[in-house]
Amino acid sequence: MKKIRLFTPGPTMVPEEVMLEMARPMEHHRTGIYKEWVKEAHGLLQYLFQTKAMCVTMAGSGTAAAEAAIVGCCPTGHKALVVDNGKFAERWVKVCAAFGIANTRLPIEWGRGAKAADISKAMDADPKIDTIIIVHSETSTTALSDIAGIGRLTRDRGALLIVDGITAVGAIPCKMDEWGVDAYITGSQKALMLPPGLAFVAVSDRAWERIESGKTPTLYNDLKAYRKSLAEWDVPYTPPVTLVRGLLCVLRGIKERGLESVWAETTLLARATRAAAEAMGLKLFAADPVDSVTAVVVPTGVEEGALRKTMRSKYGFQIAGGQGELKGKIIRFSHMGYVDAFDTLGVLAALEMTLIGQGFKLAPGAGVAAAQKVFAEAMK
Amino acid sequence: MKKIRLFTPGPTMVPEEVMLEMARPMEHHRTGIYKEWVKEAHGLLQYLFQTKAMCVTMAGSGTAAAEAAIVGCCPTGHKALVVDNGKFAERWVKVCAAFGIANTRLPIEWGRGAKAADISKAMDADPKIDTIIIVHSETSTTALSDIAGIGRLTRDRGALLIVDGITAVGAIPCKMDEWGVDAYITGSQKALMLPPGLAFVAVSDRAWERIESGKTPTLYNDLKAYRKSLAEWDVPYTPPVTLVRGLLCVLRGIKERGLESVWAETTLLARATRAAAEAMGLKLFAADPVDSVTAVVVPTGVEEGALRKTMRSKYGFQIAGGQGELKGKIIRFSHMGYVDAFDTLGVLAALEMTLIGQGFKLAPGAGVAAAQKVFAEAMK
Repeated sequence: MKKIRLFTPGPTMVPEEVMLEMARPMEHHRTGIYKEWVKEAHGLLQYLFQTKAMCVTMAGSGTAAAEAAIVGCCPTGHKALVVDNGKFAERWVKVCAAFGIANTRLPIEWGRGAKAADISKAMDADPKIDTIIIVHSETSTTALSDIAGIGRLTRDRGALLIVDGITAVGAIPCKMDEWGVDAYITGSQKALMLPPGLAFVAVSDRAWERIESGKTPTLYNDLKAYRKSLAEWDVPYTPPVTLVRGLLCVLRGIKERGLESVWAETTLLARATRAAAEAMGLKLFAADPVDSVTAVVVPTGVEEGALRKTMRSKYGFQIAGGQGELKGKIIRFSHMGYVDAFDTLGVLAALEMTLIGQGFKLAPGAGVAAAQKVFAEAMK
Repeated sequence: MKKIRLFTPGPTMVPEEVMLEMARPMEHHRTGIYKEWVKEAHGLLQYLFQTKAMCVTMAGSGTAAAEAAIVGCCPTGHKALVVDNGKFAERWVKVCAAFGIANTRLPIEWGRGAKAADISKAMDADPKIDTIIIVHSETSTTALSDIAGIGRLTRDRGALLIVDGITAVGAIPCKMDEWGVDAYITGSQKALMLPPGLAFVAVSDRAWERIESGKTPTLYNDLKAYRKSLAEWDVPYTPPVTLVRGLLCVLRGIKERGLESVWAETTLLARATRAAAEAMGLKLFAADPVDSVTAVVVPTGVEEGALRKTMRSKYGFQIAGGQGELKGKIIRFSHMGYVDAFDTLGVLAALEMTLIGQGFKLAPGAGVAAAQKVFAEAMK
């Protein structure tokens, strides 16, 4: 028997009861029942994003929702600053390029998060910038940016703040209204512990003003149509009905547990994993580590491809490698969604066994013991 | 106990075994296993579309795939003819408008399908037209257009043919290569009997040439990225993994039954429904009826909203009403996917009971008997 456990930062594992909820007979989306679902999901999404703003649900990947937010918030005459500290920033630059949106990149060392001072300097240097595009938790480097501080700055300067919260929302504190975020984006397959296929963007009133001020050069990813439908708890295009059914199930659970408690659980898993890495003599990659995903540097003498292959084929743990320039150099572990302390002890044990198998010097059980100590203290 | 049966032309009912297949533990999409799925699904999609061309699978509704096909095939300098014989044509005009694509509409009476002669005349009148956008089975009116004839014409004239096959592919004959279709579009929630969330577009070599010749003004719906990934059995953005798992299950079943036999079953359900309507003294709406959906005119004295409500709340049958200018005037019954002769006898019985309840003069059982006669002859 081999049990498969996903420790990838999306898709993450889906609770069995959510899978079975989604397996219930199909429902049609032009019915009173579906309107009820849309309405309830909207209220729960507002709780998730900590906002009174309108939360749009789309069929597609997180890229679809991010594209919708960027193209909507940047009609002709506006200019975006894309904060570039990892692989996903590159994608938002590509969105700007595809739609002919004026933009400038702010390069930040990979592994670091952006601070308000970085943004402030870039805006001083180019007064045309009136839109900031930033990744909250840069999944490729596991670095955390300071959205609270940056939100204060963009409010002061009258700029719009678009935040890719794809491995942040539902995992770590994301307070849209308190922080002043104008478009907050996430996907279904991360902290929401659903299969991929749904994407979300919560849109502030300030952002809607900008969106409605211009002609949006796309139909499918034009947020205006979603807004119009949502006013009647409806959808402009056929929605992924089964995934929406699962969404309701997951969001009800998150509300019941309370976001603060969900965030605390994510932090605990990250702390235990970091303690284990240290005890195993491994280095963390990120200078500003986020709690939703941990990146560990592959030690000298260890072959990353073989390590991940053994983890999956021998022990059943699917972890992630590095992307882009980090390929082969780091391995990443998710702490989002349907994963707990005991799954985490398992992946750390498998990591130790795999490293030892590759000849890495390590006292067997050292990492697991360090993690268990963190859990034991927190779960007293 | 009330069993719910969807007779809507999408979403349609999903087989229980497909629902449970999709409920299996999550799999990651950057794995060798997923590449195998992509490869197998691609081969099966080629069978479904009857083509050797590349078949792109996207996360989104059918509108996403249609937008991708239209915007890709119409870079600057090209002009589209949108054949307008129902509600969905309107949407493709909107796509052209959003992306600034030169286009002209060819209005055809609702309920009628387009013939090659209609297209030929429009192309003679405007020699700039080099792309035809047409709906194969216009779901809103249940009219069938002659794609085989139109394909011969567009090949002769060197134009590209984009076909919305959303309630056609997998339900009625759709022979991409034999007919000369350049972009054939469908969605998961119709004849493929899956939940909504996946969309497909099969793209001919001629269409790829056009697509690669210009800059596509969108990222998410740019087919070039899908083509590049598909060459390595990969995907550019996180795909709806569970739906792809269901897709494999459904397509294997369709291949096993054989497309000809699937098409024949759809036709049989349509024939029986049309015979029942006639026996009940009801009129069909479409002059050129398609076999995937049947539209019946609501008779004088019957209130359509109340009829559909009773069908659903009393008998559990969800049927569709009219859209746009046909609202209140017709009701529609799907013959696609996971629906058989006995489900169809059921919906016809419920229709009779509902009509009689509204005072419509009808010999109880007349329609059901007429349908049963058709089935009995075919199932001998």
